[in-house]
Amino acid sequence: MSAYRSHTCGELTAAAAGSEIRLSGWVHRVRDHGGVLFIDLRDHYGITQVIADSDSPAFPALEKLRAETVIRIDGRVKLRDASLVNPKLPTGEIEVYATDMEVLGPSDDLPLPVFGDQDYPEETRLAYRFLDLRRDSLHNNIMLRSRVVKWLRDAMWEQGFTEFQTPIITASSPEGARDFLVPSRLHPGKFYALPQAPQQFKQLIMVAGFDKYFQIAPCFRDEDPRADRSPTDFYQLDVEMSFVEQEDVFAAVQPVIQGLFEAFGGGRRVDATWPRIPYADAMLKYGSDKPDLRNPIEMQVVSDHFRGSGFAIFAKLLEQDGTEVRAIPAPTGGSRKFADRMNAFAQGQGLPGMGYIFWRKAEDGTTEAAGPIAKALGHDKTEAIRVQLGLDQGDAAFFLGGKPETFEAVAGRARNEIGRELGLIDENQFKFAWIVDFPMYEKGEDGRIDFSHNPFSMPQGGLDALAGDPLAVKGYQYDLACNGYELVSGAIRNHRPEIMFRAFELAGYGRDEVEKRFGGMVKAFRYGAPPHGGCAAGIDRIVMLLADEANIREVIMFPMNQRAEDLMMGAPSEPTNEQLRELRLRVLPRE
Amino acid sequence: MSAYRSHTCGELTAAAAGSEIRLSGWVHRVRDHGGVLFIDLRDHYGITQVIADSDSPAFPALEKLRAETVIRIDGRVKLRDASLVNPKLPTGEIEVYATDMEVLGPSDDLPLPVFGDQDYPEETRLAYRFLDLRRDSLHNNIMLRSRVVKWLRDAMWEQGFTEFQTPIITASSPEGARDFLVPSRLHPGKFYALPQAPQQFKQLIMVAGFDKYFQIAPCFRDEDPRADRSPTDFYQLDVEMSFVEQEDVFAAVQPVIQGLFEAFGGGRRVDATWPRIPYADAMLKYGSDKPDLRNPIEMQVVSDHFRGSGFAIFAKLLEQDGTEVRAIPAPTGGSRKFADRMNAFAQGQGLPGMGYIFWRKAEDGTTEAAGPIAKALGHDKTEAIRVQLGLDQGDAAFFLGGKPETFEAVAGRARNEIGRELGLIDENQFKFAWIVDFPMYEKGEDGRIDFSHNPFSMPQGGLDALAGDPLAVKGYQYDLACNGYELVSGAIRNHRPEIMFRAFELAGYGRDEVEKRFGGMVKAFRYGAPPHGGCAAGIDRIVMLLADEANIREVIMFPMNQRAEDLMMGAPSEPTNEQLRELRLRVLPRE
Repeated sequence: MSAYRSHTCGELTAAAAGSEIRLSGWVHRVRDHGGVLFIDLRDHYGITQVIADSDSPAFPALEKLRAETVIRIDGRVKLRDASLVNPKLPTGEIEVYATDMEVLGPSDDLPLPVFGDQDYPEETRLAYRFLDLRRDSLHNNIMLRSRVVKWLRDAMWEQGFTEFQTPIITASSPEGARDFLVPSRLHPGKFYALPQAPQQFKQLIMVAGFDKYFQIAPCFRDEDPRADRSPTDFYQLDVEMSFVEQEDVFAAVQPVIQGLFEAFGGGRRVDATWPRIPYADAMLKYGSDKPDLRNPIEMQVVSDHFRGSGFAIFAKLLEQDGTEVRAIPAPTGGSRKFADRMNAFAQGQGLPGMGYIFWRKAEDGTTEAAGPIAKALGHDKTEAIRVQLGLDQGDAAFFLGGKPETFEAVAGRARNEIGRELGLIDENQFKFAWIVDFPMYEKGEDGRIDFSHNPFSMPQGGLDALAGDPLAVKGYQYDLACNGYELVSGAIRNHRPEIMFRAFELAGYGRDEVEKRFGGMVKAFRYGAPPHGGCAAGIDRIVMLLADEANIREVIMFPMNQRAEDLMMGAPSEPTNEQLRELRLRVLPRE
Repeated sequence: MSAYRSHTCGELTAAAAGSEIRLSGWVHRVRDHGGVLFIDLRDHYGITQVIADSDSPAFPALEKLRAETVIRIDGRVKLRDASLVNPKLPTGEIEVYATDMEVLGPSDDLPLPVFGDQDYPEETRLAYRFLDLRRDSLHNNIMLRSRVVKWLRDAMWEQGFTEFQTPIITASSPEGARDFLVPSRLHPGKFYALPQAPQQFKQLIMVAGFDKYFQIAPCFRDEDPRADRSPTDFYQLDVEMSFVEQEDVFAAVQPVIQGLFEAFGGGRRVDATWPRIPYADAMLKYGSDKPDLRNPIEMQVVSDHFRGSGFAIFAKLLEQDGTEVRAIPAPTGGSRKFADRMNAFAQGQGLPGMGYIFWRKAEDGTTEAAGPIAKALGHDKTEAIRVQLGLDQGDAAFFLGGKPETFEAVAGRARNEIGRELGLIDENQFKFAWIVDFPMYEKGEDGRIDFSHNPFSMPQGGLDALAGDPLAVKGYQYDLACNGYELVSGAIRNHRPEIMFRAFELAGYGRDEVEKRFGGMVKAFRYGAPPHGGCAAGIDRIVMLLADEANIREVIMFPMNQRAEDLMMGAPSEPTNEQLRELRLRVLPRE
């Protein structure tokens, strides 16, 4: 027999009754019922109840056990009395009468109990991650994550993709964040960078003639921490394909992501219809490029009803160029109390407030509009708005005016809030949409034109499109939105050097700078580059959605804290003088 | 129809004859046969022959194509004349008559041709890796690597292991090499390290209660480059199990590695018998802890025959403590010419030479020993040696004397050389052995005791064993040798803090230093650590063996050169002043 176990703690059933067995595991819980000890022995696979009475030679030692001690038990499997069977445990039909016990790994008093659901401060949980990970919920999240990654890999291979590993210690591959740098010892004064994403490498793989690439790829961005973002490394499902257009990428990705959510969604409905929503439409209707489509609310432009109307604030606003009034319909939200609460919400988000109309039943039974805006607009315009929005008695509408970019984001959050408050969101489902036609460029606060997303995307219309207004250029760039999150982001790439140089020129980057920063890729494009495109899906985000967790640290085995520190391992730490000397580096004193 | 292809270039057979199709790919080769163009169009999947004559509207454009241009072809599938069928190509029954052509990605003149087998300097190959990767042999190696990694993953899951990702930007996890450091921006002056291996994390995963872990893990060691070693990052199959002894690990690993070699060994025989060879035996018999067991030669100690003998050099040597004479039997090596060549080999390796005896047929038909040693030893001793070594007429034996550590390594290389020269090695097979019972400690040149391998291994005999001579302590530490390479290395871990502190103390590390360097793990061991052990297998090495390549850069998609530079991407490179300022670092001038 093995030195440690004949069975795992999740394995014994009534069929084993009478047999002599050996188990090893952690002491989950000890109860002393008047001279009979009940020990829940736990391992990765489950829990088995071990008993010992004073006749057992193991009794004296078992009596003294601390929780979380690792022990080996020899014993005999006994059927439990019918009344004591625990149908919730796979091992609930039996218990093990201990005849021998050995401590394999003692435990000090615990800073963080494993048994029980008591909450602990995150810093304690991170410092004793090895204990926290023994708890059911975290253990299950991490196992879920592993199964998700495996499922994704299998699905990608099945779709004809091949996984390749790209370099980690390499050159900068900028994705808009800061690089982590790695000083070179062999070339002092020079630095490697950790890739923010394998973007250039996956494009080079296409140029190298491999057709369908994927990788569960570690990515590194030196970003300021956030609850839903790892401050150091994170993983993405990275995908690239040759000889494809946008719809080919969608056709390859949808079965994988949809299948994953069907497999791990815990019974939540997975909508198989994935609409394509142009970026501009998404911003208008949902105030977001990652709309939560479980929320049925769609905003509409209602400027015409306000132009020259008696509601002077909006009427005046609309005289300025580029302004609009948009309405957020709020079915069943027709009460002053609710309307005031939403108005307060908008104020909390930094807007002066949200005007509203709500419709109620008048004394004569007809539908009556109420609120200051309704009064100022008059009956006809108010009614026209109601009809446009498809609202009725008991409903409300909220209004935001100005240049869309000044209120769009708040409108989007208000839409979420209204949907949630009114219970319009069926949470028991996943709804996806491809957001397409992203603008290639945006104007920064300093008035300069810059890339709004990935500079490597192919502009729609190619070189010709780049001759006109940069802000009107759309890219073959797309995101997959799910329940209010961006799960996937991708593009058809710009594989023609002359279009690439022109695209960068519009954003203020000269040919030299492009050659300097992306020289390897530009060079490659000169020797027969296939049209190609792809995308990347955030693994952590996907697992968070599936596990229904809001904090990324609940789905990572050994996460950093929000200050990018590993409290358990003590990272980062001071280097030795010898290390610095070898790298020819000096740390400067604080300024 | 798709914008780019209805079929891949490896797909069309006689069944498609007559159909209108679309292909995209690289112009592999163009031949002009008197007004008829033959174009080999290549993609990831294969090659299809495209033809055009002057009647084809595509002819004028096709005529001008440079090799490696990416094009789209529309055309009609035609059966080839029976005499022109190419049975070596899956598409060899057909050709495509081109009716339309579009250039998708032009190509400049090539610095490195894709068609043909001409060899190019490695620096050129690395600078134009995207072209080199289009060549058959490298393309195939990289695909092999991907399939090997997938196969390993599948096999590990099938064995009940779960893959977990461990942190990459983390604390130092020393494995005997230098760390790559990553300066922290949020904590200027502090540095993260990239893990030399996930050693501590995998042990923490066991302490956290997960039972069977694996990972295809990126590892980072700042080592001076070598042909068979990547100078930056490399991958290992990392494995750890709880509640196991050494034999449990072997039982888990053998089916995976053996199965892999059976699946990808290209028909080479895979020996299913994996002997356990104690380290000391391996050094004696094979002069190596990673013996090539395809070579049948086993060395033996023959000191007794030389003690007080007429061969004064050895007789004198043996009067010193700790000396030995060992013999390398060389069946069929019984000629003076061969013996002299091997003697010269030993001299080339830094030894004074290798004495030898060879046996030949005397004029009277009996077996006669020849050579200076035979003369000096006399008939009886020479004959005793022959009998001990099981040799006969036509065979030879070589002798090395002194303290074993001074000649053991050369003896091992001589054994290889003799086996190779005499054709004793059947190269068409893989032979494995577990090398076990490694010493825990070794004496350095300065006379200090240090760990000979992994400091985290459990000493055989536990705490008691650490009370005696450190150099006599063996660890539960093991390697898997295959055909002269170390493929796997592992150990049962020391999970008891008190044994760990004592083990480190023997190597001169105080409790404080252990706490400082391995604090996270030591802390974890105090709260219920299971007995655990595991191993790691080098992926690159395994793929090199399977692909029969001697250079690691032939099995990595984007390798560094031997100076740890990426010539294609330009890494490492100078940081910007802003980057250095944010990290509060200064690069010191060359001394």
